[in-house]
Amino acid sequence: MSSIKIGMIGFGTVGAGVVNLLEESGSELARRIGRPLSMEKIAVRDLGKKRAAPFDRAKLTADPMEIVDSPGIDIVIEVMGGEEEALKLTLLAVKNGKHVVTANKLMLALRGEEIYKAVEEAGVELGFEAAVAGAIPIIRTIRHSFASDRIDLVQGIVNGTGNYILSRMTDEGKPFDEVLKDAQALGYAEADPALDVGGGDSAHKIAILASLAFKTPVDFADVYIEGITAITPEDIVMAGDFGYRVKLLALARRNEDSIDVRVHPALLPESHMIANVNGALNAVEIVGDCAGPNMLQGPGAGAGPTASAVVADIVDIGRKIVHGGAGKVSPMGIPLSSRKKIPVMPMEKVSSEYYLRFTVPDRPGVLAVIAGALGKNKISISSMIQRGRKENEPVSVVLMTHTALESDLNKALDEIAKTDVCAAPTMRVRIVKDA
Amino acid sequence: MSSIKIGMIGFGTVGAGVVNLLEESGSELARRIGRPLSMEKIAVRDLGKKRAAPFDRAKLTADPMEIVDSPGIDIVIEVMGGEEEALKLTLLAVKNGKHVVTANKLMLALRGEEIYKAVEEAGVELGFEAAVAGAIPIIRTIRHSFASDRIDLVQGIVNGTGNYILSRMTDEGKPFDEVLKDAQALGYAEADPALDVGGGDSAHKIAILASLAFKTPVDFADVYIEGITAITPEDIVMAGDFGYRVKLLALARRNEDSIDVRVHPALLPESHMIANVNGALNAVEIVGDCAGPNMLQGPGAGAGPTASAVVADIVDIGRKIVHGGAGKVSPMGIPLSSRKKIPVMPMEKVSSEYYLRFTVPDRPGVLAVIAGALGKNKISISSMIQRGRKENEPVSVVLMTHTALESDLNKALDEIAKTDVCAAPTMRVRIVKDA
Repeated sequence: MSSIKIGMIGFGTVGAGVVNLLEESGSELARRIGRPLSMEKIAVRDLGKKRAAPFDRAKLTADPMEIVDSPGIDIVIEVMGGEEEALKLTLLAVKNGKHVVTANKLMLALRGEEIYKAVEEAGVELGFEAAVAGAIPIIRTIRHSFASDRIDLVQGIVNGTGNYILSRMTDEGKPFDEVLKDAQALGYAEADPALDVGGGDSAHKIAILASLAFKTPVDFADVYIEGITAITPEDIVMAGDFGYRVKLLALARRNEDSIDVRVHPALLPESHMIANVNGALNAVEIVGDCAGPNMLQGPGAGAGPTASAVVADIVDIGRKIVHGGAGKVSPMGIPLSSRKKIPVMPMEKVSSEYYLRFTVPDRPGVLAVIAGALGKNKISISSMIQRGRKENEPVSVVLMTHTALESDLNKALDEIAKTDVCAAPTMRVRIVKDA
Repeated sequence: MSSIKIGMIGFGTVGAGVVNLLEESGSELARRIGRPLSMEKIAVRDLGKKRAAPFDRAKLTADPMEIVDSPGIDIVIEVMGGEEEALKLTLLAVKNGKHVVTANKLMLALRGEEIYKAVEEAGVELGFEAAVAGAIPIIRTIRHSFASDRIDLVQGIVNGTGNYILSRMTDEGKPFDEVLKDAQALGYAEADPALDVGGGDSAHKIAILASLAFKTPVDFADVYIEGITAITPEDIVMAGDFGYRVKLLALARRNEDSIDVRVHPALLPESHMIANVNGALNAVEIVGDCAGPNMLQGPGAGAGPTASAVVADIVDIGRKIVHGGAGKVSPMGIPLSSRKKIPVMPMEKVSSEYYLRFTVPDRPGVLAVIAGALGKNKISISSMIQRGRKENEPVSVVLMTHTALESDLNKALDEIAKTDVCAAPTMRVRIVKDA
């Protein structure tokens, strides 16, 4: 029985996880697929580098073209990361009739449409479960389990580093910088944490999920992105006093004629499904019109979970190769041409309740200035609290608002910033209550 | 383009949900499958009964053979429930080459092996996502997402009624009977709640999951089943004092040469993923050796979610009918003949920590009798608390034990029961800490 031949581009943490998993579970996978899998070749940048999985050096190559051009390869695993080079190789592999499994969220978020189109034209399979939240089966759930539902909302915590930092800030009351440094020392955050704590990584993932759930192309430039670097332990404590947890939320919601696709810190009610997902865990909530709100939770990253997701895709594709059906369903679940482009609602038009923390001099009249500017811009206050009064030092005044339009709030905050009542920039965090 | 023809047996709540969903989403489903779906015929017991979904009366039949025998039907949906009759019709449909989608957990738990064998022999598809936990994609996740993992543990709350009752007992401090009566009045519990609160329904579901996750036949008679009827508000409060929540847990664990498959109330640490799943929600945790612990959470029952799961299975099967691959993979994911039967560990051989509540006369020496019997049977106590001391009335003594063998505990409790220190039967709840 001839094997299904796999080539892999990239041999980092995830790649090594895949090699180990194929090695350990080879016979079981063959039983499940109906034919054995064979890792034929792996393209790497540095042939001499030590790898975290045993692999025949003779099968390593520095030239990825030996994989994407080889007539002997059935499935290409792309785990090199990055944008242009990965895109070029992916498109070449697809054009050569190869099925592709990728963990590259950046590439799919920024260049997904080019890939989906090429995949549909070539009639091959594209597996990308590993691109979003590791082994949490969010792609498969949207693609298959909620196939008959109109999905109204997909939201969650899709960056483990950010969640880890916020969780430790919450538990230990320490400031962001200190926890970040510690997370880096412990390997929970990378040397350059910008993509994680700045929200970019979450944005890549939610753009992919929005596109799949709402059957629409999503321009990544339209995704609103705000990270967690400005969150202070004080914000977390104050939010807690009001019954909320602070999370880095990635959200994709269907509105009447538009969709929201955004990433920002959010205050979630303590009773919210996602509010109690802590540490480096990820969790994604999907709300279908029939299936109701469902939540999937798990590690979301790491060699094991991500490799598990890659190999699960390989099993699905392998079964189709063996039994038929490979490349017949477009990667977005319906023919790309039958999709309608749904515009992303600009952030200024989004409505929300807000948590606002003003840093103000402790003197009479200050609240009147703030309340005046808010009221003038149609923003009404639902509650107010002042904390930490100290002689001759600025104090924090925290306001919670009723639902207001983002553009109105921006105007009000601009007006307040121009007065002399702000001793420091005002902190604004959106409140998300949707189940 | 010819349609994919569906026949349905049963037209209750779930059946009506399916009819409504196919009606509402017909054109979208056709886009996803590549061919339209057509509900050709529905078999019902009472042709005159009013249905919760509009359907052409001319297409109703009192004779299910018109569906399972009809050469015009591609997919049979079995939502009639029950065992023998449903089994007979399912097997007939399968033998006639029809794909089957069923929500019938009782039938699969008790007679699954007969069905899986017939399905494999006939080379048809069997969809049963709806049989376990509504739209929560637990079957698909085990079948596809964790395809490369060795699954070590599947556990969770898979009965919404039981969870609703325990949650209200916890929140309101009311006794079981009172909450049950209220739940029945509100429609959260059926007139005959035995399957729900007695654990049988959970046992059906965990037997199906164990069989699928561990690739082994499971004799339903081997599943240990204990319900929640004996749990008192006092137990819930005491458990809370020790940092635990009381849940009706369905558990399937892989041991070295055996599996645990059991349903019983359990004390879960407050920090446990499943401990905070409240109300009528279901949640299932799956631990894979690569994917790590993942949890899926959702409504778990109801017309919408269950119909969503049925139609998702229809979409999967429909795509295979259109594009190839239908009936090629055995319903358990691997050829049935390649499975090994893994024995279920008898309950007496299971080890656990225990919560024990003794009701004893408030007099010196009582604890010595209890501690003596426990010690003699190799059970060591980790903590003890006595509550609610009242003159001349029995008091509760709660003990938490270290890990002990169930058979040893049974012996100790038998010995204690034979003394004069028990004013009422002793309550024993297992403690489950596994992630």
